[in-house]
Amino acid sequence: MAQMQAVIYEGPYKMEVKAVPRPYVDAETDAILKVELSALCGSDLHMYRGHQKTSTGHIMGHEFIGTVESKGSAVTRFEVGQRVMSVFSPMCMQCWNCLHGYTNRCVHGISFGSERLNGGQAEYVRVPFANSTLEHLPEAVPVERMLLMCDIFPTGYYGAMRAITKVLRNTDTAVTVAQTTSNLPDVPGIDSVLLNPQFIKQKPEDLVVLCLGCGPVGLCAILTAKTLVGEKGTVVAVDSVEDRLDEARKMGAKTLNLKTDDIVAEIKKLTDGRGADAVVESVGNKPALRLAYDAIRVCGALSSIGFHQGDLPFTAAEAYAKNIDINMGRAAARPVFAEALKVFAANQDKFDSFVSHKMPLAEAAAAYEMFEKQAARKVILTL
Amino acid sequence: MAQMQAVIYEGPYKMEVKAVPRPYVDAETDAILKVELSALCGSDLHMYRGHQKTSTGHIMGHEFIGTVESKGSAVTRFEVGQRVMSVFSPMCMQCWNCLHGYTNRCVHGISFGSERLNGGQAEYVRVPFANSTLEHLPEAVPVERMLLMCDIFPTGYYGAMRAITKVLRNTDTAVTVAQTTSNLPDVPGIDSVLLNPQFIKQKPEDLVVLCLGCGPVGLCAILTAKTLVGEKGTVVAVDSVEDRLDEARKMGAKTLNLKTDDIVAEIKKLTDGRGADAVVESVGNKPALRLAYDAIRVCGALSSIGFHQGDLPFTAAEAYAKNIDINMGRAAARPVFAEALKVFAANQDKFDSFVSHKMPLAEAAAAYEMFEKQAARKVILTL
Repeated sequence: MAQMQAVIYEGPYKMEVKAVPRPYVDAETDAILKVELSALCGSDLHMYRGHQKTSTGHIMGHEFIGTVESKGSAVTRFEVGQRVMSVFSPMCMQCWNCLHGYTNRCVHGISFGSERLNGGQAEYVRVPFANSTLEHLPEAVPVERMLLMCDIFPTGYYGAMRAITKVLRNTDTAVTVAQTTSNLPDVPGIDSVLLNPQFIKQKPEDLVVLCLGCGPVGLCAILTAKTLVGEKGTVVAVDSVEDRLDEARKMGAKTLNLKTDDIVAEIKKLTDGRGADAVVESVGNKPALRLAYDAIRVCGALSSIGFHQGDLPFTAAEAYAKNIDINMGRAAARPVFAEALKVFAANQDKFDSFVSHKMPLAEAAAAYEMFEKQAARKVILTL
Repeated sequence: MAQMQAVIYEGPYKMEVKAVPRPYVDAETDAILKVELSALCGSDLHMYRGHQKTSTGHIMGHEFIGTVESKGSAVTRFEVGQRVMSVFSPMCMQCWNCLHGYTNRCVHGISFGSERLNGGQAEYVRVPFANSTLEHLPEAVPVERMLLMCDIFPTGYYGAMRAITKVLRNTDTAVTVAQTTSNLPDVPGIDSVLLNPQFIKQKPEDLVVLCLGCGPVGLCAILTAKTLVGEKGTVVAVDSVEDRLDEARKMGAKTLNLKTDDIVAEIKKLTDGRGADAVVESVGNKPALRLAYDAIRVCGALSSIGFHQGDLPFTAAEAYAKNIDINMGRAAARPVFAEALKVFAANQDKFDSFVSHKMPLAEAAAAYEMFEKQAARKVILTL
C-alpha cells in the first residue's frame, strides 16, 4: 500500500512525523487532496497538552489547502487538479442540522485531526462530503492567507457576530411578537389607557463590545466586532501578552492588560457603570468565562467560542440575576463563510503578521513545541 | 399614626395578619392605593418556605388591584379614586435599563412584598414610580381576572415569547450581518465559485416547544406558546400533577407526566430524534433545568423563568457541545404588557379555573398554608 509522511499524535507533548498508508476514496462523496499547506491551530493544543482525552495514532490538523488528487463520483463542485481549502470540519449538507444552517452540528460532522478522522498535516488527506466541506480559493486573497479562512477567521467572525446580533435584538422581542399575534382581536380602548413606551433601540455604533483573549481567533473576533460596530462603536480587547494587545490595537480595539488593569472597573468606566453590552470569549477557561459574566451588563449577550471542558463559573442564581443571553459552542462556518470572507478580504493586510513561522512538515514536532510555548503565533507546515 | 391590617412575614411558614402603620406618600412619584384584591403568587412560596433568605416583618404580596387614595405631585397618569393594578414590580422608566426596555432590571426595581418594599397584601400599599408601575384596567376584562396580569401572565408570556423568538432567529444571523457589512467591497468572482446554500428557516408552525411546569405561570407560558406557534405548531407540557396537565390540555398542549413518561424519549419521538426546538422552564429547580438541557435540540433556545437559587445543572462542556441559546431571568413586563394583554383577553375564559379560592385578608395565614400544600391553585385575598 502506498505510503506518505504525516504528523501523528503519539500522546501529550509527543508528535511524530512518520510514514503511514495513503488515504483513498472510500465513499462517492470523498475527495483525496494532495496537501500543499497546513497550519497549527490553537485548538490542536487541547490535544497536544493532553487536556482533551483521546486515543493516539491519528493524523493531526484541520486547516489545510491542497489540490484534488482523486474524487468519488458524487463530487461535482471540484475537478482533479483544482486547488481547494477545507472549511472547518466535514458537513454533509443533507442532515436536518445542515439544511437549517446548523452546520456546526452536522450529524456526520466529525473533526479532522481527531481519533475519528485523520487530519491534513500530511502529504494527503481524505475529505468526506467534499462538495460542502471544501471550498474554492478566491483570486483576491493569496493562498497562504486563505489558511486563516479554514477555521480561525470564520470562528472569530461567528463569535463576534453572534454576540452583536443577539444583543441588538434583545430590545425588540416585543415587536416580533406583535407581528406574531397580529391575528388577535384588539382589546377595546386599550391604546388610549395603557402606557406603551417607545423604548430606545441600541444601534451597532452604540455598543461597547468586550473581547476576551487576543490569540488568533480572538483577533479575528476583534476585527469582526470593529467592522460590525463601525468607527463610532467601541471594542475593548483583553489579554495578558503585550504583543497580542499590539495586534488588537491594529484591529481597531482599545486594549486592557489582564495583568495590570482592573477589567471590570475599566469597562464600567466606559459604560456609565453598566458593563459591556456584548462579550466575546475566545480563551476557553473558567476565569475568562467568569470575567465575561462580571463585565457584562444586565440583559447583555455573552458569546463563548472558547473550547470549554469544565464547569460553568457562575450559578443559575447569577444567570437569573443578570438576565443575560448565553451562547456557547463552535462556529457554524458555512452560513457565515461568504460574509466572513468579505470582511477578511477587505482587511487581509492586517493578517500578515499572523503567520510567524513556516516550516517543512518534517519539522512538525519542533513546530508544536514552539507553538505550545507561545513562541510562535501561527505556524504553517509546507510540503 | 393611622393603622391598617396587613399580612406580615414572620419567618418560614409563619404569616401573621396584624395592625401596622398605614403607608403615606413619601416621594412625588408615589401613589397610595386602597387595596381591593390581592393574590398569592408561587414566588411568594420561596420566602414562605424559607428558601429565600430574608429578614422578617415586611408586608407580603406583589399582585394587587385597588383605587388611588392619594398621590404625589408627579403622578400624572392616574387620578384619586381611579381603579388601578400593579405591573409586576416598581420600574422608574427613567434609568438606562428601563429606557431600553429592560424594565425587569430597573436600577430602582425593588420587589413588592420583600424586605426592601412592603407589598399589597394589606389594606393600603405605597407604590413607587406610580406612573409606570401602575396600569389602568381595560373594560374588556373583569377585575378579578386582571389579577393574573399583575405578574403571572406577562411572566409566562415573556418566557415563551423569549424562547420562540430566539429560536426562530437562530438561523438568520448570517443575513443580519450581511446587512451590517453591506458597505464592504465584494470579493471579485466570489459568488460564482463559493457554495452559498439557501438554508431552511423554521416558521412558528414548524416548532416543537416544550414547556416544563404547569403551575399558573407555566400554564400562561403554554397558552402563549400555543398562540405563537398556531394550530399547526406543537406545544408539549410536562408536570407530575394530573389536574395541572388537564389545564395544559385546555391551553392546547399535548401533555406528558413526569412520573410516568420518559420525557426525553417522547420529545425525540416527536422530532425525529432531534429534541425540542425551544424549551420554557418555569419550575425553578435543578432537575427541571437539567431536563430542559437533555430535551432540547442542538442550537435550540432555552428560556428559564423559574426562580433559581443554586448551581447550573449542566457544565460548560455540555453547553458548548449543544450550542444552545440560554436565557434566564425574570420577565420584562412593560415591553410585552400590551401584547400579553391582547393574548390574555382573547383567551380569558380559559383562566376562570385558575382562582380556586377567595378568602378575606384576615385568613391569609390559612391561605398560605393551603397554597403551599398545593391544595389551592390561586388564592385571592379580599377586603
